[in-house]
Parts: sequence; structure tokens; C-alpha cells
Amino acid sequence: MVVEKFRQMLSNKSVIREISVAAVARGKEIGYDNMFDYSLGNPSVPVPDRFNEVVKQLLDTMDPLTLHGYSESHGIAEVRDKVAESLEKRFGLPYKRDNIFMTSGAAGAMAHAVRAVCNIGSEVLTFAPYFPEYNHYINETGAVLKVVPADTTSFQINFEEFEKMLNPKTEAVLINTPNNPSGIVYSTETIKKMSDILTKKSEEFGHEIYIISDEPYREIVFTGVDAPVVSQFYDNTIICYSFSKSLSLPGERIGYVAVSPNCKDAETIIHMCTQISRGIGHNCPSSLIQLAVAEMLYDTADLSVYETNMNLLYDELTRLGFEVVKPGGTFYIFPKALEEDANEFCKKALKYDLALVPGDSFGCPGFFRIAYCVKTDKVERSLEAFRKLAKEYGRQ
Amino acid sequence: MVVEKFRQMLSNKSVIREISVAAVARGKEIGYDNMFDYSLGNPSVPVPDRFNEVVKQLLDTMDPLTLHGYSESHGIAEVRDKVAESLEKRFGLPYKRDNIFMTSGAAGAMAHAVRAVCNIGSEVLTFAPYFPEYNHYINETGAVLKVVPADTTSFQINFEEFEKMLNPKTEAVLINTPNNPSGIVYSTETIKKMSDILTKKSEEFGHEIYIISDEPYREIVFTGVDAPVVSQFYDNTIICYSFSKSLSLPGERIGYVAVSPNCKDAETIIHMCTQISRGIGHNCPSSLIQLAVAEMLYDTADLSVYETNMNLLYDELTRLGFEVVKPGGTFYIFPKALEEDANEFCKKALKYDLALVPGDSFGCPGFFRIAYCVKTDKVERSLEAFRKLAKEYGRQ
Repeated sequence: MVVEKFRQMLSNKSVIREISVAAVARGKEIGYDNMFDYSLGNPSVPVPDRFNEVVKQLLDTMDPLTLHGYSESHGIAEVRDKVAESLEKRFGLPYKRDNIFMTSGAAGAMAHAVRAVCNIGSEVLTFAPYFPEYNHYINETGAVLKVVPADTTSFQINFEEFEKMLNPKTEAVLINTPNNPSGIVYSTETIKKMSDILTKKSEEFGHEIYIISDEPYREIVFTGVDAPVVSQFYDNTIICYSFSKSLSLPGERIGYVAVSPNCKDAETIIHMCTQISRGIGHNCPSSLIQLAVAEMLYDTADLSVYETNMNLLYDELTRLGFEVVKPGGTFYIFPKALEEDANEFCKKALKYDLALVPGDSFGCPGFFRIAYCVKTDKVERSLEAFRKLAKEYGRQ
Repeated sequence: MVVEKFRQMLSNKSVIREISVAAVARGKEIGYDNMFDYSLGNPSVPVPDRFNEVVKQLLDTMDPLTLHGYSESHGIAEVRDKVAESLEKRFGLPYKRDNIFMTSGAAGAMAHAVRAVCNIGSEVLTFAPYFPEYNHYINETGAVLKVVPADTTSFQINFEEFEKMLNPKTEAVLINTPNNPSGIVYSTETIKKMSDILTKKSEEFGHEIYIISDEPYREIVFTGVDAPVVSQFYDNTIICYSFSKSLSLPGERIGYVAVSPNCKDAETIIHMCTQISRGIGHNCPSSLIQLAVAEMLYDTADLSVYETNMNLLYDELTRLGFEVVKPGGTFYIFPKALEEDANEFCKKALKYDLALVPGDSFGCPGFFRIAYCVKTDKVERSLEAFRKLAKEYGRQ
């Protein structure tokens, strides 16, 4: 008998996936280039050429038994050293090898981090709007995800609700800044206030509350935006990082856990990750890919296109009277729909070959997500479609 | 508070790892080339050159956004097609794309397969001697690993004990042939008899009992050895494969789940794997590595050295009066120690710079494992050390 829980999950279709499938199908009719497919968060700029050169150089120069050989279960020591060094330089905190555990992307990082610091039955708080996969990432560990309702005026943190929901079962707070789907970056004020509350509550409850900071969009921050380093404000911070967006390498599944050097259990947590791996079956990411990204820690793909796209969309949507908070990073924007039911709104959008994702699954009904990781030319051409859509609602 | 269960695991040292560390330390004193380090199952022959050429060709010819882009969570469709085709050709069973799920090595494959077909609290039977990591792989899924005692005369299956241990809670039987640590290949007679028993018991219990066939050593079978294809004998067979040993790519963490086309729930199980991935955090292996191995499905590293090494060791150990079953494959041999406590025996061996692993952790006290994935020259030089060790026990 197959396990019923997972079999039943097959009938729960992902909304994002369904819209993406519809967009691709429509794209086959009208030419995909004419389909304004804003459904998926898939990078639209290529990896820097240098990455491929680095891979080739590794293949040409390294002993294949070392290059393709088993790595330590923490990840390759030299790679961890280099990641730590890059974080030290960037964050001004003394990260060392034993603060770093290499993983299969941010999903792999979270699978380890949550299992390391959240006991069975404990609660992990996150803030709407949030990436819906968090439900699976957290709940399958045995902890329970609880979602703090959004502050829909700013998409910063709704502190009133947050303080109400914090309780002795809270063992971690999961944040994602820059945020998918809102594009918002938490301000220094937000991070400070959150840290102060967590410090106070940790003392009150008599146990640590960790911040698990999911940072795949860390490198995509727009001009002039205040983007504080969470680890500088809160010692018990565990970064879950992925190179998917910064280097446009989502298929390579490469990332890391980085526990703040100021966290007293940092090394223990990193060593525990190697034990957690044994039970969930991914002992390490590819050695070739580990070694390659270690040479690319100060590079990114050309991420400037995302800011260009954001400005085009933000300006036009604002002009059309959409309520929309200006993103500080990522390749998402999250306006309020022009009718109460964002699902209906997104259905109407499809008539104009616009594939948009309703906010319900992100914990924010009434809003919709535009993933503008597409060519700028397509964004420009899509503005007319937004105008037609807005016109249905008497906006122009 | 870090999670106590994983923290406590840190103090349980792996015996294999400890011996390996001791061997490397001693190697630093006497030169590693003079240390007969038989502790780890790490391939000693390089990946075929063509693998690196294939990787470079992919980098040179494919659009980077496709090459390094998100793949479907089942794995890249074309890769799954090619894997299915290779299994169809080889096993004469109609494997198709939907029988295949790409994973991070065999550990990743087992993490999915067991979660798909074994309910919480169910039992998974395996046969001693067995790979000790199975305890983690299985028990962390919520199922419970039960070990059938060894038939130490042949290291085939102890059917009397097996039949006693089968019970309505048994939902899977985990086999590993060719076997780590014994090197034994289960004969056609063994596989037939096991399949007949499982078919009968499935009917009696009113639910499927799956065979989970861990096959990383499938390609390392010695001359003239009967190596039956398990899926040809039992419909509910799920293969967990890794390219680690066949292509000498352990660091690349690449493998797959292949459910027999004769299993009625095959496609459901494969789709379920994509749901399981979401909770354990490794959605896919590296896209570059997936695409590369898909071009190497009919290649292996030069595996002939392992048979050469086996024969040298088998002949000399037999001559010295060791009780030893001749391996049919892998790069392991599993003789009986010359005293009751194999731990003591292995300690004495270290005096002669021989790093051997006692059988206790493999569920077979009194035996020891030699992992002869080393250069043949080292095997030859080690024979004198074995002679000296045997002499301590009056053998020469």
C-alpha cells in the first residue's frame, strides 16, 4: 500500500503550477514570446560565462578522483572556508568553516536548519505574504508553520499580530527578505524591532527562538534600498542561502546553511546537520558544483534587468491606480487586485495573455504576484495588456 | 534549544570513520602509500574521460538558462527517458519515463522510496550483513529497520529467520546485491525463493510487500557470477541506484528511483516522490550532472581492477586459512576474523598498518570487511602484512 498522505498530495494542484501550465499552453497557440508569462520565479538572465569556464578548468586541472570523490558530509572544507570568508567580509562577523554547511539549495538548507533547532510539535512563525512551499518545508519536519497575517499597507511585519502569536512553543521565526512574493525588503527598523521582541521573548520563555533567514534574493536589492544584515542584529540567526537567483543556477541546486558566529551553539548545529542529512538522504550537493560556486562568491549574473522591469511595471500600475507597494528587491511585485477575489482577477488577466498568480496561496487574498523575471522587451509589450485589463475595471 | 536527538548522535562515532581517521593519521607518519587503508568504500579508478568531455560539451552547446535552469521535480524528462530506455534494454522490462525519478544518489533514492511505500510504524526487513547507514535511512522515515540474522556460511539469505520475521507490519524488504560488506551476489535461486515467499506473504497479509533493491554495485560483478535482475522476478520492486561506483562519481551525488513497470502503482509512486521531495528538501540533483550521466548510461569506469584485487586477497586469505566466502562483485570481502572479537582482531591488524573494519556494525560480529578499492600494487604489498597478522594466530 502506497503511503496515503503523499498519494493524496497528488490531487492538490499548485496554483502557480496550474497557471504556468496554462501560460505555456496558450503560448503554444500564440507564440510563447507573445504570452506575458509572469507565473514562475525562474531567473531570466544567464549565469556569468565565467562559471562555465571555472567548471571546465576544474575538469581540466583536478584529479578526477578528488574532483568527483566523496566530500565530507559538511561539504568540501575549502569551499566552506571560502563561503565563510565571503560572509565575514560582507557582514563583518567572524564566520568560520564550522559555521557553514553546504546544501542542495535553500530548500535543502531549510530542511536541515529547521530539523536542527525545532523540536517535534514546536511552532515556526512566518509572515504573510510568504512562499507557500514553506508549508511543506516546515510541516514535514514535525514542527508546525503558523502564519502571521500581513501588514498589507507596507508588507513589513504586522507586529501586533506577531506579538500575539509568539508563545512558549515558538522555536523559530522564518523570514524571507527580500521577500517572495511582495518584493519588499525588511527595513533596519523592522529587523531591530523583531530582534528586540525575540530577545525579550527568548528570555521570557527560557529557550532560544532562532531566526531562520531564507535569503535566496539577498543579491537582488534595488538602488538606494535599506537592506540590513539580519545576523548583525540577532545572534541566533541561521541563514539559508541558495545561488539559484544570484548566479542564475536554479537547476544546480546549490546553497548553504550559515549559522551566525555569535550563536553559542553554532558549531553544534552545523555538526548536527551532518546527522540530519543521513536521515533525509542528501548527504551533499555535487562536488563539482560546490567547487565551482566557491570561485564565484563575489560574482552575480547581470541582475540589473530586474530593477528595470520593476520600475516599468511599478510606474504603469501606479498610473493605472493599482494599490502597490514598491519592491526593494527580488523579481516580484505584489499589487492589490482590482476586485476582491484575486482569482477572478487573474482569470480575467488571462484573456489579455497575462499570466498572474493570485495571492491566496501566499497567505494574502486579494493581491496578485507578477514574477517579472522576463525580458524587458516583454515587460514593455505587456503594459498594453495591463491597460486593457484595468479598463475592464474602469481604470485607464 | 537544539534538537537533542541529533545532538546526541554526534557522540556516536562511526566505527568505519574512526578507523579511516586512524589510517590517515598513521599514513601521515609512514607515508599514506605505505598504509594499507582498507577502511572506506571509495572508488579507486577515475571516471571515464568521456564524462568530463560530455560536461564540457554541455557547457559549450546548451543555452545556459536551460542547462542550469530548474528541472521538473521528477528530474529532466529527457534524462528519465534515457534511463528508462537503458533499463528496458538491459532488463527486458518496459521501463518508461514515469518509472524513473532522479535523485541525489542511492541515499536520496531510498529516502524517497521508503517514504512512498512504508507507513509510519511499519517494518522494513533487511539481511545481515548490511550497510549500517540503513538504520538512519529507514528509521528516520518513521518505519523501523529489522535485521534478519546472516547465513554466515554463504551470505545468501537466512530463509528460516526471514520467514519467522515476516509479519503483517512488514511493508518492504531492503536488499543490497552485490552486497556491502560481504561482496556476495544473491543467486537466482535466492531471488526466486525470496520472491515466492514475498508473493505468498503479500497475499496472506492483504497488502503489498515491496522489495527495495539498493543497487549501487550492480555494475561490479565478477567473471561468471550469476547476477539475476531482481525486477524480473518480483513485480513490486523499486530499484535505488547510484552512479557513484559504476562511474566513480560519488561526490556528484547522482542516482535514481526506478519502479518496475510491472508494479501496478509504479506511476503513482514516482509522482509521490515529487511530493516527498518537498518535505525533505532536495527537489532534484544538479541539472548539469543529470544531463551528463544521461550520456554515460552504457559506460563504466574501468572496474576490472576490483576483480584483480579480490582474487589476490581471496587466494592469500584462503591460503592462510581464513574462512572466507568468495565475493561475486563489489570491492569488498568479508572474512571471518581469527579470533572471536573482530574488534580486537582489527586492532592487532593496525600494528601491521592494515586498516580493516570489524563486522559488528554490519550486523555480523566476528567478521571483518576489507574495502579493496585501492591500487593493485598496494594490495600486493599488503599481503605480507596479512601474513604477519595471521602468524600471530599461528597461521602461515
